[in-house]
Amino acid sequence: MNSRLFTFIGGDIGPWRVIKTVAIQGESLPPTNRVEIIAGPVDPAGLSAAWILRGITSNERYVTRDEKDRLVARQQALGRPEATCAALIPIRKNSDWWALTQDERRNIFEEQSKHIKIGLEYLPAVGRRLHHCRDLAPDEPFDFITLFDYAPAQEADFDNLLAELRACEEWKYVEREVELRLSREEV
Amino acid sequence: MNSRLFTFIGGDIGPWRVIKTVAIQGESLPPTNRVEIIAGPVDPAGLSAAWILRGITSNERYVTRDEKDRLVARQQALGRPEATCAALIPIRKNSDWWALTQDERRNIFEEQSKHIKIGLEYLPAVGRRLHHCRDLAPDEPFDFITLFDYAPAQEADFDNLLAELRACEEWKYVEREVELRLSREEV
Repeated sequence: MNSRLFTFIGGDIGPWRVIKTVAIQGESLPPTNRVEIIAGPVDPAGLSAAWILRGITSNERYVTRDEKDRLVARQQALGRPEATCAALIPIRKNSDWWALTQDERRNIFEEQSKHIKIGLEYLPAVGRRLHHCRDLAPDEPFDFITLFDYAPAQEADFDNLLAELRACEEWKYVEREVELRLSREEV
Repeated sequence: MNSRLFTFIGGDIGPWRVIKTVAIQGESLPPTNRVEIIAGPVDPAGLSAAWILRGITSNERYVTRDEKDRLVARQQALGRPEATCAALIPIRKNSDWWALTQDERRNIFEEQSKHIKIGLEYLPAVGRRLHHCRDLAPDEPFDFITLFDYAPAQEADFDNLLAELRACEEWKYVEREVELRLSREEV
């Protein structure tokens, strides 16, 4: 069975070497050498990890059919052989965001911030998987975890994608954001 | 701290006596005498229960600001002294529903099914709290649990509310629904 739940483990094992761990907004995560990503839950007992995060893939919350069709036509699954660079970006939005109604959130997300339009410009070079955390439990440290991957030659483009998103109206509601850059190095 | 997570325990204890347990669509739940509702998580070890369900309150997924303002002006919190009748209704929607985009789901939910408009007609007589389950874990048995309460004199109105909702387009996507009617009898 394909699990919708993924576990992200920061420690000393796993195929992803951590290039940097940066607090973009709010509190950082403890820096680690490696990240392991597991499809499914993990029993934390006996694990030596600096941090463990988890998220679940779910139905999309904002895209329209027209946008979805354009995304599906261009987007790539994670794990292409050339995609040896990755970014793991956990984010928490503030309570003002979550108090907005669906039409207000959609308006900020796309009509003001062009989140989908910006993302489309970077497809198919950047692979992406969004994991939701907010409704896993009432005390999750983040609302979302996004995992991106791309080839080394696309790094400058990926930097531009992040800069564009962080400059938009939607990001004014982000109260915590940590950026990990990863490099795939099987050991 | 107010927990967004609630645990629903079907067994022999708790203030809610079970009047009936009915499978409306798909598999039922084992019938029990009592239901207990806990704000927060529960350790199932040592609990003698026929079933344990859980759900988490979350941001609204469909209402617009205008609809929200009308709901807030009329809706009541659960637990009014006269509201000694309750209904606990867990629901699971099918994969077709979850594959729809946001605009398609909203269109079915309100423009076709009038879910919010119908609900508004029964306020403030019926109290309601919606709990989300689908993103708690990949293997939850239901997507939503709704808890309603009302005074005994409102029972026929409440029956009408359920009949109206079950006749609408949105309900064609419901693949499992169990209805428990409860009566508050402190012991």
